[in-house]
Amino acid sequence: MRVLMIADDRPTLGIGMVGYAFMGRVHSQAWRSVGAFFDLPVRPVMAALGGRSKEATAAAARDLGWAAVETDWRDLIARDDVQVVDICTPGDSHAEIAIAALEAGKHVICEKPLANSVAEAEAMVAAARAAAGRGVHAMVAFNYRRVPAVALARRWVAEGRLGRLHHVRAQYLQDWIADPAFPLVWRLQRERAGSGALGDIGAHVIDTAQFITGELLEGVSALTETFVKERPLAGASAGLSATGATTSADGTSGDGAPGDAADSAAGGAVATGAVDVDDAALFIGRFSGGALGSFEATRFATGRKNALRIEVNGSRGSLAFDFEAMNELWFHDHTLPAAEAGFRRIIVTEAEHPYAAAWWPPGHGLGYEHTFTHEIKDFVEAVAAGVAPAPSFADGLRVQRVLAAVEASAADGSRFTPVEES
Amino acid sequence: MRVLMIADDRPTLGIGMVGYAFMGRVHSQAWRSVGAFFDLPVRPVMAALGGRSKEATAAAARDLGWAAVETDWRDLIARDDVQVVDICTPGDSHAEIAIAALEAGKHVICEKPLANSVAEAEAMVAAARAAAGRGVHAMVAFNYRRVPAVALARRWVAEGRLGRLHHVRAQYLQDWIADPAFPLVWRLQRERAGSGALGDIGAHVIDTAQFITGELLEGVSALTETFVKERPLAGASAGLSATGATTSADGTSGDGAPGDAADSAAGGAVATGAVDVDDAALFIGRFSGGALGSFEATRFATGRKNALRIEVNGSRGSLAFDFEAMNELWFHDHTLPAAEAGFRRIIVTEAEHPYAAAWWPPGHGLGYEHTFTHEIKDFVEAVAAGVAPAPSFADGLRVQRVLAAVEASAADGSRFTPVEES
Amino acid sequence: MRVLMIADDRPTLGIGMVGYAFMGRVHSQAWRSVGAFFDLPVRPVMAALGGRSKEATAAAARDLGWAAVETDWRDLIARDDVQVVDICTPGDSHAEIAIAALEAGKHVICEKPLANSVAEAEAMVAAARAAAGRGVHAMVAFNYRRVPAVALARRWVAEGRLGRLHHVRAQYLQDWIADPAFPLVWRLQRERAGSGALGDIGAHVIDTAQFITGELLEGVSALTETFVKERPLAGASAGLSATGATTSADGTSGDGAPGDAADSAAGGAVATGAVDVDDAALFIGRFSGGALGSFEATRFATGRKNALRIEVNGSRGSLAFDFEAMNELWFHDHTLPAAEAGFRRIIVTEAEHPYAAAWWPPGHGLGYEHTFTHEIKDFVEAVAAGVAPAPSFADGLRVQRVLAAVEASAADGSRFTPVEES
Amino acid sequence: MRVLMIADDRPTLGIGMVGYAFMGRVHSQAWRSVGAFFDLPVRPVMAALGGRSKEATAAAARDLGWAAVETDWRDLIARDDVQVVDICTPGDSHAEIAIAALEAGKHVICEKPLANSVAEAEAMVAAARAAAGRGVHAMVAFNYRRVPAVALARRWVAEGRLGRLHHVRAQYLQDWIADPAFPLVWRLQRERAGSGALGDIGAHVIDTAQFITGELLEGVSALTETFVKERPLAGASAGLSATGATTSADGTSGDGAPGDAADSAAGGAVATGAVDVDDAALFIGRFSGGALGSFEATRFATGRKNALRIEVNGSRGSLAFDFEAMNELWFHDHTLPAAEAGFRRIIVTEAEHPYAAAWWPPGHGLGYEHTFTHEIKDFVEAVAAGVAPAPSFADGLRVQRVLAAVEASAADGSRFTPVEES
Repeated sequence: MRVLMIADDRPTLGIGMVGYAFMGRVHSQAWRSVGAFFDLPVRPVMAALGGRSKEATAAAARDLGWAAVETDWRDLIARDDVQVVDICTPGDSHAEIAIAALEAGKHVICEKPLANSVAEAEAMVAAARAAAGRGVHAMVAFNYRRVPAVALARRWVAEGRLGRLHHVRAQYLQDWIADPAFPLVWRLQRERAGSGALGDIGAHVIDTAQFITGELLEGVSALTETFVKERPLAGASAGLSATGATTSADGTSGDGAPGDAADSAAGGAVATGAVDVDDAALFIGRFSGGALGSFEATRFATGRKNALRIEVNGSRGSLAFDFEAMNELWFHDHTLPAAEAGFRRIIVTEAEHPYAAAWWPPGHGLGYEHTFTHEIKDFVEAVAAGVAPAPSFADGLRVQRVLAAVEASAADGSRFTPVEES
Repeated sequence: MRVLMIADDRPTLGIGMVGYAFMGRVHSQAWRSVGAFFDLPVRPVMAALGGRSKEATAAAARDLGWAAVETDWRDLIARDDVQVVDICTPGDSHAEIAIAALEAGKHVICEKPLANSVAEAEAMVAAARAAAGRGVHAMVAFNYRRVPAVALARRWVAEGRLGRLHHVRAQYLQDWIADPAFPLVWRLQRERAGSGALGDIGAHVIDTAQFITGELLEGVSALTETFVKERPLAGASAGLSATGATTSADGTSGDGAPGDAADSAAGGAVATGAVDVDDAALFIGRFSGGALGSFEATRFATGRKNALRIEVNGSRGSLAFDFEAMNELWFHDHTLPAAEAGFRRIIVTEAEHPYAAAWWPPGHGLGYEHTFTHEIKDFVEAVAAGVAPAPSFADGLRVQRVLAAVEASAADGSRFTPVEES
Repeated sequence: MRVLMIADDRPTLGIGMVGYAFMGRVHSQAWRSVGAFFDLPVRPVMAALGGRSKEATAAAARDLGWAAVETDWRDLIARDDVQVVDICTPGDSHAEIAIAALEAGKHVICEKPLANSVAEAEAMVAAARAAAGRGVHAMVAFNYRRVPAVALARRWVAEGRLGRLHHVRAQYLQDWIADPAFPLVWRLQRERAGSGALGDIGAHVIDTAQFITGELLEGVSALTETFVKERPLAGASAGLSATGATTSADGTSGDGAPGDAADSAAGGAVATGAVDVDDAALFIGRFSGGALGSFEATRFATGRKNALRIEVNGSRGSLAFDFEAMNELWFHDHTLPAAEAGFRRIIVTEAEHPYAAAWWPPGHGLGYEHTFTHEIKDFVEAVAAGVAPAPSFADGLRVQRVLAAVEASAADGSRFTPVEES
Repeated sequence: MRVLMIADDRPTLGIGMVGYAFMGRVHSQAWRSVGAFFDLPVRPVMAALGGRSKEATAAAARDLGWAAVETDWRDLIARDDVQVVDICTPGDSHAEIAIAALEAGKHVICEKPLANSVAEAEAMVAAARAAAGRGVHAMVAFNYRRVPAVALARRWVAEGRLGRLHHVRAQYLQDWIADPAFPLVWRLQRERAGSGALGDIGAHVIDTAQFITGELLEGVSALTETFVKERPLAGASAGLSATGATTSADGTSGDGAPGDAADSAAGGAVATGAVDVDDAALFIGRFSGGALGSFEATRFATGRKNALRIEVNGSRGSLAFDFEAMNELWFHDHTLPAAEAGFRRIIVTEAEHPYAAAWWPPGHGLGYEHTFTHEIKDFVEAVAAGVAPAPSFADGLRVQRVLAAVEASAADGSRFTPVEES
């Protein structure tokens, strides 16, 4: 027997997204899925997608489920059916789009890093503060905070289960540019990307460390290096499939994307260009609570694919996480008798774990995309409730200031460099 | 600038799904997502959802994205806008629905186990064969074949990289009913579920083992056990939150669902009922190619949440997999010099890996739900191409015959019992 | 300033050892080392080594630190300076030597398996019982009981920390004869070795499982297989370096020894012989306390070198062990809140752990040889105290009866076969 | 039949050891065992043990197997039956003893760190160079070089299997002083120990990193910290069992020894003293071949017991090691197709692996003590052959210079500080 559908009488929340590459694809999946798993107070509507290329953007909109297309992000912002602007472009356009959107009264969720410079980030924070006074909210998309294991780590540190923190050991290891023949994609160009591994993946692990510990990095001493100083130009030869140059028009942001990979077997002479960003960045530092931190971001760690790793050692216990096994959190309870203690592998899929009740039975793990579903869920709930979502643009600026301190220290003989206060 | 959307001029494929509990939810997500990641020749349309309860089904349809609702599965089958029937109910209704759908000319995808008895499964196979003659196809939903790591394992065994197979070590370990106070949900009732751990999760690991090896189990020797013989009736007390009884009306199939978990803290006398299915089943057996197999399915392996594990040892190498770390396949290449050999952890997220190119960059893992996305993708492609999808109902029957042989052996002093030929 | 040495005024305990191959070497190291780490009530003296070949035995005595040599084990037993006979020969000579030694009033420590048949083992138990009445003691050398992690597992099961036991999952996996060109060494000959993987390594894992659980296997259903039925004769060709034939005169017992490895690159026709023992044995069974057991012993698990593995699942927790990581015990405490529970890796090197206080600081692990040091320590302490050491010959017989039941079941269509009571 | 023993007609090599605590115990076991496993050209004789306390030293000599006792190390050096002096005292006495021994024509093996200051180490190197001209040799005892997995790592890097090195990630993590009530043992006093975690365990991981890479650290930027600045005096109260003060007279060197653990449950006021060494030291640096290095040494990493870890990433592959699983080396071969590559766990017990042929069959692992057996074996072979053993005192000085650079950088705002050339 056919029965009437139940009307969905929640208010709608219209989304306009700019950019549809790696980040745009995963954001789309999150917008598409979030309502089926979380009981949201409003109904997100995938209203319009923005991109420069008419054909490519229209094709993306069709495949990803966006109802309309705009080739100018200003038009996207101006749409009446858009209440949220989701910025998935490279860092060099974040400030301009975000500030315009906020001034237009649209909520903003912006990919990381917040901007390509501290100055841009400061302007964005100012815009976000002004907008907040008008009930318009902004969030920077550090999705790794929404890994259930990371959220659980934060919860336990906040509850004091680790005691006084002594050590933070944080790495983000990838290997997708270890081959010198990999081309000069936009992520390797300072103008587009702001920095190299540092801003792309280092930003993630800095935010994750500050999030889990609830402490701020107060100062750093750093080394950076560009191992391969000259690379083939992307698209410079027919033999190259890397599309860094062409996709950059509607490029993406987010963490390291070997998606824009290269065919290194080009015949004949290949035009090359200089790599002007870091291939790797290492730093040590001090946290506001007294802990020492050791950080490393690199795209040259052969065999490590997406190893965002963090270990925190406290007086009462320790936690360890590796995104390559993202459903696991390792916990050592130092208050147990020595004979019984050891790092335990907690599969973070129990109903009691952050976000997990919305999904499957225990042991039926989640994947990368779900960190975005959680992020969108938290963002939507905050916006609907009229409260500020986290992480804020100020949090993004704080990370930006750490990046700046790292670069300053590296440029000044690794001198210990305080992170500027916000 | 607003631009025209590109019309999607692919033919549509209308889906009608029966059941909306655990399996229905994850199938819905697969139907909703598959088109955004795979370039399908047809466009799946989530046409209608079937369930007995008008209100509950309508609410589920709204949340899960189905366009219409039917309270009688016969009506669902009869709809003109339904070309595929997706069966997500418990095993006791599979045969009736599947046969009716096939006879009505609708393609069928049916959750596992195929049926609750060999006789039912045989009838389903007969119906599927008849339908195939008319270009109508059927598939049984052993989703674990679509874990990229499992598909990779199959590929490598088929390529001969393991040489002659000697051992298969297969387990499916869960722990969600280890507590004697956990209630008598439908999965613990023979009438609904057919068997206990054996049919629910044992069926999965049997299929996975036969899939990876490309060999059939020829005979088995088995032990089964019911550790907790009496359990509180689900819903028998207000203190119980388990909803086995109430959800069973529109229950689900698939693997073990602690989703229907219980509050064991019931005060006062609680009505109990007998558990008439196995809590655990163990068997050893012989494969058609000469390998020995060791199998175990249990819901009493405390600490193991969803450990579908399989290790295969061959003369030239070995493979090991554990669903609790589903993005990893462990491979030992025995043709390497001894000093260099060892099990290597392959993160199955490279573009060259099965299904992986559709998703994210290396190291950005997938989750449980994606096994269904892959399954739906393969099903849709087969149906669109007019070829038989795999695994077929005959494959499902083959697993059913193994289950029957296991039960027969266990009932006959563990005597080695040949698996009947199909 | 030179100072007088402190006299060691403890009574001495003279040791005579028979056999000096793999087991003889590691027993020698244990006798040599035990006094430096454990405060023994007597001082072991490595009095004499027995072996058939005059030259080889004398060379071994010199290298291994034995004070004298005997070419007839009867002479060894008869020596006044020998109070303990340590039997490190293959299983076919255990009964004769052990019974003679016990009758001569010498304490006996005998390698496993206790004997090559139940009948021999029964005679040995009878001799041990008679000797015990005269204060003469016997022990079978199941060294894996003395892995600190295994002893800790036993302790915790005995304390009830696992609750009611439901599952035992036990394997002993090696791969040293997976190559069909590996020669027919004594371990592959029924006459010398009694059985194949079953008695050699299966015996170990059976004893370990019964030891940890404190329960006995009551019945089994089994499959055995010989994958490679014909092998080159050891020593049959100058091109072979395997020395199975020649070393067998003074061969050794204990677990699988690829030490007698082969050169498989023999040119020309090679004489071959039939393998009349099992390459692999699988069985399932029931424990006296109600747990189900799954066992596997094989030398064809490519990539697994010495993987004696055991997992025990109980209602209150689980334990898992793998000898390839012998300093670790994995413990899941099921009484913890679900959100905090998981298998924890306990590094069994704390002072509170069995045997560990005698060695190094935490994290400074032990190796294979130390299981023998611990075994010798326990044996010497028991003998000095006049109490029966464990495991007794009766324990060895119990394992022998399981082996016999496995072979009987395998020969009788895998029928469930009770283990004979002692 | 009794047969004549075979005379051992090798020349003897008389050993005199100074110190008998942690390091003395493990060195003794190595001297005692080495000849039974390795075919040495000379026969080591454990001639005499040196220590200040007459009674304690005599008891240690009896337990550990030394033939004589000296209470003045000068007398020990002077003995005619001593050709080798093995120095197992804390770092503050290394220089004096080693220089005297070398001048007396005795070969020297000296525990690490070589000395407590660069100046002392320089004097030792000068003495070693002078002695070498007279055929007298010296070695510093960085035992971790002799872990088979570490030696294998070195071999593969030297063979070019890792290609150009980009990253070294090295940590030595312990947790034995995380409790603020742990007393002020000698390892926490600058006067005795030279530095804290830095010199004790940091020295090990620096040497290991330089050994594996074959490169030198050229400069560092460092942070050090003392988390617990005041601790109870060891032995200051009857309630304390820690014996740092009393054992220090004949103390030991080597890596972190919770052996001198404390009872923190002292009643009443406890006298305390200032901790004047680092609890943790972190630094980043550059290697001579261009790799970046990240180092950390701490005794506050709760849950990490003896985690000497090192990962090296090169253009052609990566290696990873953790002493807590010392029989394993993880190798990623980046020259394999991406679909097949991954870190493989090599169990370093094959006959082809460094040192392994002397021991047991594959999978029968070694322990901490065997690193010393290997070290002694290499030392004895070098001395017998009249060649310089490695690591030399110059290698020890090189590590000392790194330690000095770390301290200098930490004291100077983490400024990048070149390591002085030797």
